[in-house]
Amino acid sequence: MTAPVLGVVGTGLIGASIGLRARTNGWHVLGYDLSEAGVAEALACETIDAGVTRAELYARSDVVVLAPYLQATLLELEALRDAPPARARLILDVASVKAPVMAASRGLPGFVGTHPMAGGERSGASAARAALFEERTWFYVPSPDADLDGRAAAFLAGFGATPVAIDAREHDRRVALTSHLPQICATLFAQRVNASLPPESADAACGPAARELRRLGRSPYAIWGEILRYNSANVEEETRAFARALLEAADALRAGDAAPLRAAFAAARGD
Amino acid sequence: MTAPVLGVVGTGLIGASIGLRARTNGWHVLGYDLSEAGVAEALACETIDAGVTRAELYARSDVVVLAPYLQATLLELEALRDAPPARARLILDVASVKAPVMAASRGLPGFVGTHPMAGGERSGASAARAALFEERTWFYVPSPDADLDGRAAAFLAGFGATPVAIDAREHDRRVALTSHLPQICATLFAQRVNASLPPESADAACGPAARELRRLGRSPYAIWGEILRYNSANVEEETRAFARALLEAADALRAGDAAPLRAAFAAARGD
Repeated sequence: MTAPVLGVVGTGLIGASIGLRARTNGWHVLGYDLSEAGVAEALACETIDAGVTRAELYARSDVVVLAPYLQATLLELEALRDAPPARARLILDVASVKAPVMAASRGLPGFVGTHPMAGGERSGASAARAALFEERTWFYVPSPDADLDGRAAAFLAGFGATPVAIDAREHDRRVALTSHLPQICATLFAQRVNASLPPESADAACGPAARELRRLGRSPYAIWGEILRYNSANVEEETRAFARALLEAADALRAGDAAPLRAAFAAARGD
Repeated sequence: MTAPVLGVVGTGLIGASIGLRARTNGWHVLGYDLSEAGVAEALACETIDAGVTRAELYARSDVVVLAPYLQATLLELEALRDAPPARARLILDVASVKAPVMAASRGLPGFVGTHPMAGGERSGASAARAALFEERTWFYVPSPDADLDGRAAAFLAGFGATPVAIDAREHDRRVALTSHLPQICATLFAQRVNASLPPESADAACGPAARELRRLGRSPYAIWGEILRYNSANVEEETRAFARALLEAADALRAGDAAPLRAAFAAARGD
């Protein structure tokens, strides 16, 4: 029996981590990336078996994962709708915002939109880890085809992740709070620290939480600019709500009123 | 030669971690805590050699570390100024806000105010770790006595920490940004997540950064309420500045203006 073939479009951190784990799961992994250097890096890090052309990838792959940047995913989906690949029985994406992906993929046979709640501030195949998705939620947007969804969920479970079905709009609302707002906070926090303290003093004065925020603050705009733009209405709402909560905390500190902060700490602990 | 004696007043996470590490460094560690259960826990976790009365602790200790909550530290310092202990050559505190500590300790012989940039969302001796201060900054406020400061810095270095001298007011300004603001963000974020999502959905939807913020959001008000109150002017200023930055980000998202966020990501990365 020959190994099933997985095609990974976009061999960055997520695509390469998928390739790495899939190889240990017995897949033969083909990689394609607009960047030749990106494919070379993925090969050097042994996250894919071979780099191929786009046409070859779709001709040979049983399953295809689209893992480039968000806008590139949308463009690829438009292209696939115009010319659906004959071979692949399952096509997944991994983009962080699902409503525009579901709109761009409408009618594409075999497609299921997904999003793993995993990642990292480092990008590129050299940062790939086979265990990246281990014990993480991997959201997928149910299609009209229950059999297709079952195959998608089984594929995701192979990465040690927990597949969770979710409506696309609900997903985008939820990650605006649980992923996109934290990134904005980390970025603005790191910006403020860099502007306020010389590098050595900043390192010295940061406790565990600040270190984590600054680490996350190194995440690249190339990835996040698109995510925030495509989910801007939800992110704007969460960001404003969070700013209001901060201003109320500042007002309470000025007034010497302990009650609001005491209540916030209790609610944060779930007491 | 008998072992030198360290007295730890307040056997919570920090005091017990100090005791634990000091014991491995060859100190005989005496513990005193207003809570008898706290002393019993510290003994059970082998973070101190013996629980003693307050009077016995000061009568027998060569070095004393004050590690109760902030207000208790201030009250203890006032009491020590009225009746300085005869034996201890070095008395340190570890409170998170230094200006009120330095005011309360003025004229107390052998005292050096300090603050380790370490901690955790769990409290109590059962959460103690000998390595808690390893590779962390341990701030101290220089006294008029260089010899005393040298002994203090040498003592702190014994915990694997890096002693860093700092002015008390500068310390309080700095940690308002690097420690107190992150705690407020974590608390308000966890509060918002708990209010927006049922527990299971919240766990599922949180990526690495959100998990870290929620973990930190479990920190107790009993500790943080005092810290924020005693450093309220600095914390209020940092909190307002951060809220303004968030609102500017929200405005940019609404306007579809990519430039401010691109600039923030670049500044956060130090590009």
